[in-house]
Amino acid sequence: MNFASDNTGPVHPRIMEAVMVANAGSAMPYGNDDTTRAARDAVRALFEAPEAAVEFVATGSVANALALACLVTPWDGVFCHRVAHVEEDECGAPEFYSNAKLILVDGDDAKMGPDALEAAILQAADRGVHGVQPGAVTLTNITERGTVYTLAEIRALTDVARAHGLPVHLDGARFANACAALGCSPAEMTWKAGIDAVSFGGTKNGCMGVEAVVLFDPARGRELELRRKRGGHLFSKHRFLSAQMGAYCEGGLWLEMAEAANARMAQLLQGLARVPGARMAHPAAANLGYLDLPRDAHERAFAAGAKYYTYPGDAMDVAQAGAHVRCRIVCDWSKPAEDVEALLAAWAG
Amino acid sequence: MNFASDNTGPVHPRIMEAVMVANAGSAMPYGNDDTTRAARDAVRALFEAPEAAVEFVATGSVANALALACLVTPWDGVFCHRVAHVEEDECGAPEFYSNAKLILVDGDDAKMGPDALEAAILQAADRGVHGVQPGAVTLTNITERGTVYTLAEIRALTDVARAHGLPVHLDGARFANACAALGCSPAEMTWKAGIDAVSFGGTKNGCMGVEAVVLFDPARGRELELRRKRGGHLFSKHRFLSAQMGAYCEGGLWLEMAEAANARMAQLLQGLARVPGARMAHPAAANLGYLDLPRDAHERAFAAGAKYYTYPGDAMDVAQAGAHVRCRIVCDWSKPAEDVEALLAAWAG
Amino acid sequence: MNFASDNTGPVHPRIMEAVMVANAGSAMPYGNDDTTRAARDAVRALFEAPEAAVEFVATGSVANALALACLVTPWDGVFCHRVAHVEEDECGAPEFYSNAKLILVDGDDAKMGPDALEAAILQAADRGVHGVQPGAVTLTNITERGTVYTLAEIRALTDVARAHGLPVHLDGARFANACAALGCSPAEMTWKAGIDAVSFGGTKNGCMGVEAVVLFDPARGRELELRRKRGGHLFSKHRFLSAQMGAYCEGGLWLEMAEAANARMAQLLQGLARVPGARMAHPAAANLGYLDLPRDAHERAFAAGAKYYTYPGDAMDVAQAGAHVRCRIVCDWSKPAEDVEALLAAWAG
Amino acid sequence: MNFASDNTGPVHPRIMEAVMVANAGSAMPYGNDDTTRAARDAVRALFEAPEAAVEFVATGSVANALALACLVTPWDGVFCHRVAHVEEDECGAPEFYSNAKLILVDGDDAKMGPDALEAAILQAADRGVHGVQPGAVTLTNITERGTVYTLAEIRALTDVARAHGLPVHLDGARFANACAALGCSPAEMTWKAGIDAVSFGGTKNGCMGVEAVVLFDPARGRELELRRKRGGHLFSKHRFLSAQMGAYCEGGLWLEMAEAANARMAQLLQGLARVPGARMAHPAAANLGYLDLPRDAHERAFAAGAKYYTYPGDAMDVAQAGAHVRCRIVCDWSKPAEDVEALLAAWAG
Repeated sequence: MNFASDNTGPVHPRIMEAVMVANAGSAMPYGNDDTTRAARDAVRALFEAPEAAVEFVATGSVANALALACLVTPWDGVFCHRVAHVEEDECGAPEFYSNAKLILVDGDDAKMGPDALEAAILQAADRGVHGVQPGAVTLTNITERGTVYTLAEIRALTDVARAHGLPVHLDGARFANACAALGCSPAEMTWKAGIDAVSFGGTKNGCMGVEAVVLFDPARGRELELRRKRGGHLFSKHRFLSAQMGAYCEGGLWLEMAEAANARMAQLLQGLARVPGARMAHPAAANLGYLDLPRDAHERAFAAGAKYYTYPGDAMDVAQAGAHVRCRIVCDWSKPAEDVEALLAAWAG
Repeated sequence: MNFASDNTGPVHPRIMEAVMVANAGSAMPYGNDDTTRAARDAVRALFEAPEAAVEFVATGSVANALALACLVTPWDGVFCHRVAHVEEDECGAPEFYSNAKLILVDGDDAKMGPDALEAAILQAADRGVHGVQPGAVTLTNITERGTVYTLAEIRALTDVARAHGLPVHLDGARFANACAALGCSPAEMTWKAGIDAVSFGGTKNGCMGVEAVVLFDPARGRELELRRKRGGHLFSKHRFLSAQMGAYCEGGLWLEMAEAANARMAQLLQGLARVPGARMAHPAAANLGYLDLPRDAHERAFAAGAKYYTYPGDAMDVAQAGAHVRCRIVCDWSKPAEDVEALLAAWAG
Repeated sequence: MNFASDNTGPVHPRIMEAVMVANAGSAMPYGNDDTTRAARDAVRALFEAPEAAVEFVATGSVANALALACLVTPWDGVFCHRVAHVEEDECGAPEFYSNAKLILVDGDDAKMGPDALEAAILQAADRGVHGVQPGAVTLTNITERGTVYTLAEIRALTDVARAHGLPVHLDGARFANACAALGCSPAEMTWKAGIDAVSFGGTKNGCMGVEAVVLFDPARGRELELRRKRGGHLFSKHRFLSAQMGAYCEGGLWLEMAEAANARMAQLLQGLARVPGARMAHPAAANLGYLDLPRDAHERAFAAGAKYYTYPGDAMDVAQAGAHVRCRIVCDWSKPAEDVEALLAAWAG
Repeated sequence: MNFASDNTGPVHPRIMEAVMVANAGSAMPYGNDDTTRAARDAVRALFEAPEAAVEFVATGSVANALALACLVTPWDGVFCHRVAHVEEDECGAPEFYSNAKLILVDGDDAKMGPDALEAAILQAADRGVHGVQPGAVTLTNITERGTVYTLAEIRALTDVARAHGLPVHLDGARFANACAALGCSPAEMTWKAGIDAVSFGGTKNGCMGVEAVVLFDPARGRELELRRKRGGHLFSKHRFLSAQMGAYCEGGLWLEMAEAANARMAQLLQGLARVPGARMAHPAAANLGYLDLPRDAHERAFAAGAKYYTYPGDAMDVAQAGAHVRCRIVCDWSKPAEDVEALLAAWAG
């Protein structure tokens, strides 16, 4: 009953198999190998973007940091939601790579609205040389609270950005879960909706550790390569990153795993009616949910061996909090339905 | 006959097996897992340094960059050999992470001597606030030209550094090959010889992609963790890095592979007598060798399908060069004796 | 009637005279001159801090940036008020010099309260390696809205910082105006109240362009010197910076000018009763005031040639705003009482 | 007899007068004042470059750092002579502002030759993504050893740079002295000879502290403004920088002072025949000279109160050196002929 994160789960057997296959014999290093060429093309095909610059890295933090760095200058501001991963969970990696400043935008359920975004842009633009310049926008889908931007909501934000000349990055650490939730294609959620750069996540969704940075403007590709190398992120035995991404794209595995993870969260939401006093803190639309649980329900689950994060702080703080405990539940592709049932049962008492 | 680099070779089966084993079930992320704890302890045991700070990353460039960044300030100079990997092959990663400046020291066969090092330190110290300050020394064993610093040579350099209050880093991308060549222990080549920080390489020696940063002063450990995270190098599914390093240390596999690789180079050196006009450009002591070959010998090998780098530039430049071609030959753990024989045969004609 | 800023005013004749005097003959460069030694000592005497590290720079932005950089690491957060100068008006200079991240704290009248500060520190500390680390606190006195922290309020903030191990910086671009308003000594407003580092401003208060960075821990002094040089802020003809600061400290000129400036604002506040519909937006306590004026009153003043900034945006935006216009009025040491009267008369109509 | 540097001399009375004049009344800050507009235009007129971006800063280090930063990316290399000021005397400021790496080129008398430059560019270009990319060239006129590049020599270097697509910066800390030596116009020594960016120095030549950054491509101007602000180098009372530069350009004062300084060095060279055993270390062509003096001659001068730097190290090291002492002599605009005679007399004994 480990619901702590989708990065606690195992690698999908087809991904692991691809890694084994890539290990046969010698291959040229630093991405100059056939496995890499094929995986890049697979990502381009998935995004219907045959010209896009595509490079692979091993963590989501650096995927975001590199993508943003390629969009801005060091005296720019990057607009993001107050609880964005780039703001809260990357220890300053976006600033380290881009030197830009994050400018926080509020909004319910971890989603920026177009009006709040525009107000923030206008305020920044008003300071002339004294303030950082409006530089780019980054949004996350699915969001850090488990909600999902619709295609129309994305378009509303990219329209605002475009009106002010700003490129838009999508943090897709859980990109597949968003596509699964929206029933849309990668292209529809990105360049067709006005997105310029994507962190296309594999790690949280059944890979060992691989993310693709996708820049729809191929002119930025050389900068991406050089920034990656300078950050120490160019793998010499690059084929092992690429093999993961290749298998991930192959035969819709990326979507299949996301659908499985989302289905487990849907099962949990359905079963929540059986847990008296439980309520959603944000409307969960994919594989990640925030709930407020009666304290005794939460304690029963932990006593039964469940693992998940509570807020604020960790489980040690529970005794100090109120009648409800805020819990974050994440399902990954591998989670069996029985685990969800067991969790619900523990909560229900 | 791929002798282009030791990073073209495959992962050792025992390493790959460990990765598979680590994939069973769930594990907490970001290094908070048992596989990681065990691998850290294995490295500490290998170095006879039970208190050392040990963290894992996926590339040698970032291992060097992080280790150096933990030793210096942004207004420091780092003394290294003119052809050091940190100077020539990391696209500025050491400067990106540390903000320090590399100060180049000359020396035959890619080895700094203590006098040249001291002269460079004194010259830098002479400029007061106008110049960068002497900050640290970094040396590479085995060197970028395939030569090996003896323990006495290392000690001579660390003595100079110590006399000027400078910590010393060892770039050990081919650490195991140096130990194998010297017949010494990891402790003897490092802290017992005055080294403060090590990049302990696994990638070039049969791993998929893992290096350990070892700081013998554990007080620097928290900074290392934070710098790694800020650089986007903290893996969420960290167990897969750790599993490689654990297996690498287990049962002397790290040394066994290095000895195999060195043995292939020794075989090649022995056979070189059969190649008229061939001569070593530097005295090869481990698994890496620079040779000057008669042009026709080189051309026969390439025609036979051999792969290795020539200098300056790549093979395309060969036609412009002189009667001899400078060739870099690298053997990895997996290279069969037959490949070496085939290469020698092609050269000999 | 130029009330746009205290940096629009002239240099005080005694400051200018000191610059002329310093020009006699040759002097050694880079601060190795008698004028500089004397000025450093004058600042130490003013702060009753005979051991403090004191260095001079030409702008307030770099004084803040250097002081903060000496207090934090690149992976730290610096807590400041949402409208702090370091956040809004320095185009990222604090981040450029320190690499740290500004963390914004709310509070009425541009003042942080201890509870809001502590909450922000706790939230940052809660994220472990994933977030930037609590690093330092910076506050501004007088504040960016013309209000003044009392000594008790400063102490309440430094107590919180101290409890969490954080040093505290005081942005004193208008330090003298705060001292004049509080009737306290520089020592009372700084180290006696728990402040570790000060930007002691001269430029806005009758100097040509000089600020002193004061670090009460002299152990940080060498780092300050090196950071200043590396930022290109070490003047070769340094005596001209120092001469200003020496004259500024001499005979209480710094305080005399601030009292004059504050008196003009007091005069304006008193006269405001004559302007129907005018009201203070924040309680002005020194030489800077934010007012909401009826539109017609504002328009009369501009028609009469008055200069001051309106918010948001500049005067061109006035037509789009509501019935009131928010105006920022700043008095410098040179402002004659007649100008204040003329402004009030224009407003009153 | 202070020949330590041209930055030990006083400000020219016409410069000081201009500063006094600028102090009359109020002026808008941050360069939005008439004095600044006029001074910018004066520099443009001097360079016959009516469209050039021109900004003023207070030190030569930041002028160089900002100019270079506007020409390169963080993963670039900047080619400069081994003893360039940017390499030896700016404590890493160029790297701090640009993040680029300096690549050192050898050459006699502190001058790069086109062949050495081209070899360095080719070597850097050869490393692909593994090395920093060729980014820009910077040269200094007059050089750090007092020699002067002819217009043909400058053109030879800019031709090489242009052939590789690299922009060229001229460090003109002693720009006026070079123009005076060559008898050429500022335009002839810069854009007409293929230079893209200039640090046009005033500080060493009779100003208080002002340098102009001149970018002949005006499209880079906004970046220059933002980088300057972010570095904390935008003066609020900007008119005092501008007044210096305006007076410096007015009526050929810049050239007049340089000619005076150069004449003193010519006088010294002529008189050197009277000093037995004295010899020039480099051919002095402007106001700066390196000489090797018999030890007793040097000691007589110091005993008589002369001030100048000796190498390596300072005068304290003299006793350890050989029969000759290497001395650096610099004349500024204010140096009377009598001082030069006195120095020669002391040397001659």
